[in-house]
Amino acid sequence: MGYTDVDQLAINTIRLLAVDATFKANSGHPGAPMGMAPVSHVLFNKFMTFNPQNPNFPNRDRFVLSNGHGCMLQYALLHLFGYKVSMDDLKNFRQLDSITPGHPEAHDTPGVEVTTGPLGQGFANAVGLAIAQKHSAGVFNKPGYELFNNHTFCYFGDGCAMEGIASEAASMAGHLKLGNLIAIYDDNHISIDGDTKCAFTEDVTKRFEAYGWHTVWVKDGDNDLDAIEAAIREAKSVTDKPSVIRLTTTIGFGSKLQGTGGVHGNPLKADDIEGVKQLFGFDPKQSFVVPQQVYDLYHKHAAEGAAKEQEWNQLFEKYASEYKAEHAELTRRLSGKLADGWEKSLPTYKPSDPAVATRKLSEAVLEKIHDVVPELLSGSADLTGSNNTRWKNAVDFQPPEYNIGDWSGRYLRYGVREHAMAAVMNGLAAYGTVIPAGGTFLNFVSYAAGAVRLSALSRVRAIHVATHDSIGLGEDGPTHQPIETLAHFRALPNCMVWRPADGNETSAAYYSALTSKHTPSILALTRQNLPHLENSTIENALKGAYVAVDAPNAAVTLISTGSEVSICIDAATYLKEKHGIAARVVSVPCFEVFDAQDKSYKLQVLPDGIPVLSVEALSTMGWERYSHEQFGLNRFGASGPYKEVYAKFEFTPEGISKRAIATIDFYKGHPVRSPINRAFQQIL
Amino acid sequence: MGYTDVDQLAINTIRLLAVDATFKANSGHPGAPMGMAPVSHVLFNKFMTFNPQNPNFPNRDRFVLSNGHGCMLQYALLHLFGYKVSMDDLKNFRQLDSITPGHPEAHDTPGVEVTTGPLGQGFANAVGLAIAQKHSAGVFNKPGYELFNNHTFCYFGDGCAMEGIASEAASMAGHLKLGNLIAIYDDNHISIDGDTKCAFTEDVTKRFEAYGWHTVWVKDGDNDLDAIEAAIREAKSVTDKPSVIRLTTTIGFGSKLQGTGGVHGNPLKADDIEGVKQLFGFDPKQSFVVPQQVYDLYHKHAAEGAAKEQEWNQLFEKYASEYKAEHAELTRRLSGKLADGWEKSLPTYKPSDPAVATRKLSEAVLEKIHDVVPELLSGSADLTGSNNTRWKNAVDFQPPEYNIGDWSGRYLRYGVREHAMAAVMNGLAAYGTVIPAGGTFLNFVSYAAGAVRLSALSRVRAIHVATHDSIGLGEDGPTHQPIETLAHFRALPNCMVWRPADGNETSAAYYSALTSKHTPSILALTRQNLPHLENSTIENALKGAYVAVDAPNAAVTLISTGSEVSICIDAATYLKEKHGIAARVVSVPCFEVFDAQDKSYKLQVLPDGIPVLSVEALSTMGWERYSHEQFGLNRFGASGPYKEVYAKFEFTPEGISKRAIATIDFYKGHPVRSPINRAFQQIL
Repeated sequence: MGYTDVDQLAINTIRLLAVDATFKANSGHPGAPMGMAPVSHVLFNKFMTFNPQNPNFPNRDRFVLSNGHGCMLQYALLHLFGYKVSMDDLKNFRQLDSITPGHPEAHDTPGVEVTTGPLGQGFANAVGLAIAQKHSAGVFNKPGYELFNNHTFCYFGDGCAMEGIASEAASMAGHLKLGNLIAIYDDNHISIDGDTKCAFTEDVTKRFEAYGWHTVWVKDGDNDLDAIEAAIREAKSVTDKPSVIRLTTTIGFGSKLQGTGGVHGNPLKADDIEGVKQLFGFDPKQSFVVPQQVYDLYHKHAAEGAAKEQEWNQLFEKYASEYKAEHAELTRRLSGKLADGWEKSLPTYKPSDPAVATRKLSEAVLEKIHDVVPELLSGSADLTGSNNTRWKNAVDFQPPEYNIGDWSGRYLRYGVREHAMAAVMNGLAAYGTVIPAGGTFLNFVSYAAGAVRLSALSRVRAIHVATHDSIGLGEDGPTHQPIETLAHFRALPNCMVWRPADGNETSAAYYSALTSKHTPSILALTRQNLPHLENSTIENALKGAYVAVDAPNAAVTLISTGSEVSICIDAATYLKEKHGIAARVVSVPCFEVFDAQDKSYKLQVLPDGIPVLSVEALSTMGWERYSHEQFGLNRFGASGPYKEVYAKFEFTPEGISKRAIATIDFYKGHPVRSPINRAFQQIL
Repeated sequence: MGYTDVDQLAINTIRLLAVDATFKANSGHPGAPMGMAPVSHVLFNKFMTFNPQNPNFPNRDRFVLSNGHGCMLQYALLHLFGYKVSMDDLKNFRQLDSITPGHPEAHDTPGVEVTTGPLGQGFANAVGLAIAQKHSAGVFNKPGYELFNNHTFCYFGDGCAMEGIASEAASMAGHLKLGNLIAIYDDNHISIDGDTKCAFTEDVTKRFEAYGWHTVWVKDGDNDLDAIEAAIREAKSVTDKPSVIRLTTTIGFGSKLQGTGGVHGNPLKADDIEGVKQLFGFDPKQSFVVPQQVYDLYHKHAAEGAAKEQEWNQLFEKYASEYKAEHAELTRRLSGKLADGWEKSLPTYKPSDPAVATRKLSEAVLEKIHDVVPELLSGSADLTGSNNTRWKNAVDFQPPEYNIGDWSGRYLRYGVREHAMAAVMNGLAAYGTVIPAGGTFLNFVSYAAGAVRLSALSRVRAIHVATHDSIGLGEDGPTHQPIETLAHFRALPNCMVWRPADGNETSAAYYSALTSKHTPSILALTRQNLPHLENSTIENALKGAYVAVDAPNAAVTLISTGSEVSICIDAATYLKEKHGIAARVVSVPCFEVFDAQDKSYKLQVLPDGIPVLSVEALSTMGWERYSHEQFGLNRFGASGPYKEVYAKFEFTPEGISKRAIATIDFYKGHPVRSPINRAFQQIL
């Protein structure tokens, strides 16, 4: 209320920064920033608490631009409020090595909470951020100490609204009654193909009502600042439901092409820009102009945010005296470090221990460590009993009124929503107080590929518990048996794929996943039981690969992962007994970790002179990096009891031995260079 | 109406077949079949037209079990109606090499339309089947000749309802007003984690209303056959909207554990089975029992279906006399063969032709062939102008009342719904009269990974037009630049990944994709312009790889794809001029096609004695199969003008030459065996 010319000036300043930056870059999306400038002005100045001097203030309100292509809006706001985003950074929009890339990247730009652009992701990230807030409040808030009460605000457009991942996340948020989440839907009726009437005519508001959201409609999002303010106020007042504000706007407001697809993904033409500047009372000859009143207004709000952080810091200091343990705990969590000595709780095993499926061994890890790693939030996409992701006395994260859990609960029922799960986990991790782990079948991590990719790109510590990791799942058959999945995620940069062969390797996988602050991990785990290996230790496994069975004068090295390692060990015995051939066996639970070892260790594991045969019951793709010959499955699997399926595809001591002998014969008389030796280094 | 004891007997027979088969297999899902037997009995006998003697009758009603884990329901029905699914097949449920695998597979089992199980896929397939029906009717129906008027019926459960892909598909179906689609929602309140109240409390019916669906609720789906029949009748009467019937059922009806998660994914215990059989009036000592009255009833309906096919065949014969061309056209389409000589329309290019982006060359192919391949249905997930998937005079597939297209339209506006798009394409292809092509950015084919996998597994001819295929997309940055994507899909069995380097290769990619009746293809296409290559011909490209530049006494072979081939050719010149080194260049537009060539040709392309360096601006994973050393990008890309991004990562003649020299040096004095020579054959 009480908006003046300065407010309008600020709004138009934002619009023109987006216009100028996209024009200069000759690339980018001016339309959404021009349409969403008014709501941004109101939201950021009247409702949001943040401190540009410390983008990590724990109780800041979170902002997510799910329609990330409109990022010039976000960069303009960050600049105006005084984040470390300079005018030169705006001028370098979409230029090489700038901090203003084509879509917002959290690790690049101060003030960007999550990496967005791939549509629908940001929306689901926002749900994760809101869950993390509720959970942190549930754990750390005390009477008189409301340490966590921030809101999460999320913009999304028609594109996000069409994406299934956003539907999944919205349904989840409605179920969880996330009253701290306010999403603003840029209802501008335009997507890249033009008017949304060509593909998207559903009633979005009604759909959100069906999910259990509170809904508000602002009919003139271009001009009616009072209505915008009232809508956000109303949304904030509804605390038992997430809210969506349908904000009807004109994309590219002010342009000759406003309201059309022409302003969505292309810079405005020079003459159009001139007209827009005249319309807004700006000098058409000048670019990247910010009137001092606008800086003043925004810096004033930034100063208020800094003051609020000061208040919070004082409250937190006082908290220290009354809640010493909680204070220490929260301080530790915010540092990203795990509790000292937590790793002593990791279970270890002897070869004589009974054979157990790695999914159960994973459960054993969770059972042992959940107390010492209290920031770990586990969950599953409706496969709890199969993924074994829930420790026995876990409490569900649920709105207390359901009487099946509470806000401090550490087990998330994601529902059958794999893609949203992975993206919610990215949001959870981004909040800063929790480490998310989420389970599904390995084959269905592929449903979440878009979000896992962003885990890796945005350097997030998230743990994907991926059980039923091969044809070893048996009867469910080829629709559920992964073949290409490990190759896919091994090819993804900054993603660790673990496929442990036994108990100690499973513990190592968790150690690695939990201590890798900037890397997501996928733990591929078996349905079927596996024996514990002779040379397996947490330390060995943490090198990524190690010699599981050594043999003097070996004629061949068998290199393998997970459930196939013990079969390789049997094959080595078979080769010895039936053919008098000495074979070494190498277990390589994690390629990425092995790659990071020094060369001399790697050559110890895979020395020159001995041909290497890889064995894994999945696609052979990628194995050439560590082996001369590859035995795998470059076809789909089969439905049947798993031992029969393994036999069908010859993943047996005999089948492996046959190929080992072929490998030995093939390399007879040829000098054999270790695959570790390469002509040059990769760009990293 | 008028249901008798025989109807109830049939329903209980179905239930018990599911109980017996899952018990015998000691694996599987009895709950859904027990709950859905009543609606199945009514739907199949009272509403569906099909001929078990000819599962391919073109105008048959289609049935899709999206909750594919309940497949014993489907297998039991197929058996009872007399499809080639024997009692022994039922007894072999989930056994190796049976035609009754753990989830329904279209290519295995007569009467199964699409491969389902991965949740949500079947629902989207059903939308595709319904679109294909509307389109076929639009093209082939004439006054007095309603050749295509079938319905598509789809079952789905809470799991499917939670999946984003189903949300996307439902929104699309609502927009398209698919009155021929009837979905039946098994509202049993149970998923694997137990009661849906733990994760899924939205109002599903209201959500479907928001999408524009007609909705009906049957409150007692266990017993009220009249209400079921009335609901289906009502749904059929609504022809301008898809319908969803919310059918409240008791999962595992009849079991001691009915209505709980205990009957979802596990066989019933022996004593429970005894009780169920007693309850249903069956002999507890007998298994796999089908009373003769039940066979009689079902075979009677099957015979009616056969008679209806006869009528249809007569109508179609009559059609031949009045609509000769259409008759011939439809006959051809149903055979799966393309029109004779269609390939003559494929554009060809000379090296002197101007450089063009392969996405534009793809558009040129569509422009040239759309008339001679009238079964081709193109489309895009809201990136029409970027994917270049629409020929100039294309008509949109839209309900005529929108006045923006009609049912005969061949361009689909999928909206920003990549996952549904790919699954809808699987349904389109399964109908038998169309070949679907759909566009998005290569990076977002990953959103559709679950559906692309099923394209491959179910052997479907679908064409994924995947533009913006590398860091060459430039400014949009790492969120949009694929790195792992080609490795992922190259690792997927029965999926052809094409990355053409120029015009002739692009034409070859289309030739291959369109003539591969049982294999999906992904065409990875550039945003940036590429020159036409000297040795590029459609014939050469159709070998998967060929020598683009030969050189006597070559010291190195550069092998590459797409946009990097011409840079390799420049690198070969650079190596010659600056270093006096002779280099060959091989273009390998498609690994899978190259793999299928005979060994002597492959050795011609990659001969012994010359080390091979691969060059591709994506993950190096998989390239070891064709090269000794690999130059690629095992990290994320960067936002900036594409030439600068290429230079940053050294994909330049200089950068390639440096690595070529390192490769030559590394292999100096070492005998070099072609990567084509392997110790043994892979299992295929």
